[in-house]
Amino acid sequence: MTQTFRPHVVIVGAGFGGLSAARALAHAPVEVTVIDKRNHHLFQPLLYQVATAALSPADIAGPIRAILAGQKNARVLLDRVTGVDVANRTVSLANAGPLAYDWLIVATGARHSYFGKDHWGAHAPGIKTIDDATAVRHKVLLALERAETETDPERRKALLTFVLIGAGPTGVEMAGAIAELAHRSVSRDFRSITPHCSRVVLIGSEPRVLAAFPEDLSAAAQRAIEALGVEVRLGSKVTHVAYDHVEIGEDIIPTHTAIWAAGVMASPAAEWLAAPCDRAGRAVVDSDLTVPGCERVFVIGDTAACVGPDRRPLPGIAPVAKQQGRYAAQAILARIAGREPQPFAYRHYGNLATIGRKRAVIDFGRVHLTGWLAWVLWSVAHVFFLVGFRNRLAVGWNLVWNYLTFARHARLITGEVEASAPEDRRLAA
Amino acid sequence: MTQTFRPHVVIVGAGFGGLSAARALAHAPVEVTVIDKRNHHLFQPLLYQVATAALSPADIAGPIRAILAGQKNARVLLDRVTGVDVANRTVSLANAGPLAYDWLIVATGARHSYFGKDHWGAHAPGIKTIDDATAVRHKVLLALERAETETDPERRKALLTFVLIGAGPTGVEMAGAIAELAHRSVSRDFRSITPHCSRVVLIGSEPRVLAAFPEDLSAAAQRAIEALGVEVRLGSKVTHVAYDHVEIGEDIIPTHTAIWAAGVMASPAAEWLAAPCDRAGRAVVDSDLTVPGCERVFVIGDTAACVGPDRRPLPGIAPVAKQQGRYAAQAILARIAGREPQPFAYRHYGNLATIGRKRAVIDFGRVHLTGWLAWVLWSVAHVFFLVGFRNRLAVGWNLVWNYLTFARHARLITGEVEASAPEDRRLAA
Repeated sequence: MTQTFRPHVVIVGAGFGGLSAARALAHAPVEVTVIDKRNHHLFQPLLYQVATAALSPADIAGPIRAILAGQKNARVLLDRVTGVDVANRTVSLANAGPLAYDWLIVATGARHSYFGKDHWGAHAPGIKTIDDATAVRHKVLLALERAETETDPERRKALLTFVLIGAGPTGVEMAGAIAELAHRSVSRDFRSITPHCSRVVLIGSEPRVLAAFPEDLSAAAQRAIEALGVEVRLGSKVTHVAYDHVEIGEDIIPTHTAIWAAGVMASPAAEWLAAPCDRAGRAVVDSDLTVPGCERVFVIGDTAACVGPDRRPLPGIAPVAKQQGRYAAQAILARIAGREPQPFAYRHYGNLATIGRKRAVIDFGRVHLTGWLAWVLWSVAHVFFLVGFRNRLAVGWNLVWNYLTFARHARLITGEVEASAPEDRRLAA
Repeated sequence: MTQTFRPHVVIVGAGFGGLSAARALAHAPVEVTVIDKRNHHLFQPLLYQVATAALSPADIAGPIRAILAGQKNARVLLDRVTGVDVANRTVSLANAGPLAYDWLIVATGARHSYFGKDHWGAHAPGIKTIDDATAVRHKVLLALERAETETDPERRKALLTFVLIGAGPTGVEMAGAIAELAHRSVSRDFRSITPHCSRVVLIGSEPRVLAAFPEDLSAAAQRAIEALGVEVRLGSKVTHVAYDHVEIGEDIIPTHTAIWAAGVMASPAAEWLAAPCDRAGRAVVDSDLTVPGCERVFVIGDTAACVGPDRRPLPGIAPVAKQQGRYAAQAILARIAGREPQPFAYRHYGNLATIGRKRAVIDFGRVHLTGWLAWVLWSVAHVFFLVGFRNRLAVGWNLVWNYLTFARHARLITGEVEASAPEDRRLAA
């Protein structure tokens, strides 16, 4: 029996892009290693539901090992990549020696960015990981608890003010969910605070919400979110964030709960590869998703700056990452077989955002959908795309249950809390 | 309209005892304030399932506010009690001014105790809170991940050795669950480690496991747990715990995952009340559960040292706390009405412990039950006693699902991890 040589494909990052690349290589004559610094794949589109206590972390995340358990040619490494040596074709790891690759797919995603004001992060956390989401949940629920016992009316008002910075899908979805949480779900449970005490403010720098959507859908989304009691402030630039207020120029909004949904910055993959990148740190790639000069290195998903047929950069959404993952896998197999791959072509199916418990907007290109029907489609699509049969059942069940009852079952404040100290270091940290 | 005086009952702690007292006062002419330093009630008997990744925290915990939302005469305070002034009938709070009571019920539970060796806690965490359970889950899952990439056989063996210190119900349940997790649930997902690599050791200081149960049930439990591959070491005293080993006298067991299930210490309620206490810190109470000399202060549940009809102290289990909570509520109402309450009489229904995915032992007094039927009864009882319809459905569904599939869906390692550094401060902290 001769041992045939099987090229080694290393995939860094097990998000939508990395996992779809790994799966596309399932039956190919290659060895696949998936490296991630976390042990779980995360269904990021539903992360705001964890942050607002509607879902549990395990509902929207699954161990990468379990997802790839059936794939014989794949192994999973829990480790952090610290660099890439393109000349020697190795990846450096934080905890193990360098790992050699024949082909490399970099799918490390993005973090939120404070545009150089990183100290704002202490007071306005973003929502990219499960830890981010549970920290935001902690902050929102604790603000309600503190408001319940606060006797000073000004301080109480600040505790009941929730400010979302950024009016893209994350900001809009969070604003709707928090408005429902603060106005309805908790109204039965508290004795001192009443639903109309809460104020939810959505701040956008563009002249409309969901600026990436067509204008009629932006308008519909704004109407829907205002109907939930959210105050929408557009064309506004946040100039300062402190632990007890947010500033928009001269205007000061007292709040203890600001949440960041304004910008993202790609992971440092471009730096590793010494590749040119755009303003958001995304590596500029060729039409075959490789970095110019490194034909064995593919960069995909939120880490890549890739332009669409209309010359505009592709958005940082799951379908782009998934299609790029599948493409990179196929391009590698083509090159191994001695063929030149076709350039990557993104196929756009639609853009979705949800507003509160039962409204959504969907942009299918020619067809625009709003309202309850859009929400049903949004729900079906999200449940369908969740990884794992069990998670689908759990999340589907939760969506139905929350729709029927307004319940927020995952309202846990974990960690030791000092209930009303405003300078609480746990929160400021 | 005249405002009638309604006595104020303050309940400290929203565990089984505190909540059952609050509920027993639902229709009584009193005002009830429930104070807890956490915002959630926890169904502790299933906590080991969170620690072994079978359930999510929100499956077994619910916001205290939501549980008491329908009870008009009750309000909930998220705060930490720091002392009691019996003479002035007030409770001191960490974040608000003193709170006056007419009647006080102290139900603050217990923490695990290291018998004066508190530094062991860093290497052998106990399981009493949700944060404890997720920390243990983190430790167990990370040990498996590290073992997967560890090349040194000795170190790998240590990473795959799990030591449970204490052979009471918690130790036995954890040992069974970890054995199944390490031997079966994860066997598909890993490439280097195989099921038979793992070693689970259960250390008990008594001559048998489940020493509070009758001998035949102890024997049955030991057989069942040994059938799962657990190594049982009885009559053994742990003399030292370090980050990479556990010592029993001369004998050294290399392990990176020791878990403490050996002893508990009551919360400092006896100290607050300057009341005499037993060796485990529990306040000695009269037959009406009040502290001698403080007839308006009841101490219940794990915080109280109360003897049963056989002169033995009542065990620290949920039914005792619940019955005492109901009793304290009724005793208060009797005193308010000018009657003297009957002494507290504990009614024992049975003792349960579960072993792995489908075995349990139940002591009904005259009737002893073991095996699969006991497990079914255990499951039904636990699901039935869970607070909240939604949690019952979720946990019931999870029990069935896990029974059918061996799945452990909540296998999330959260927080930033440095995958294989043995001195990892996050774990040691």
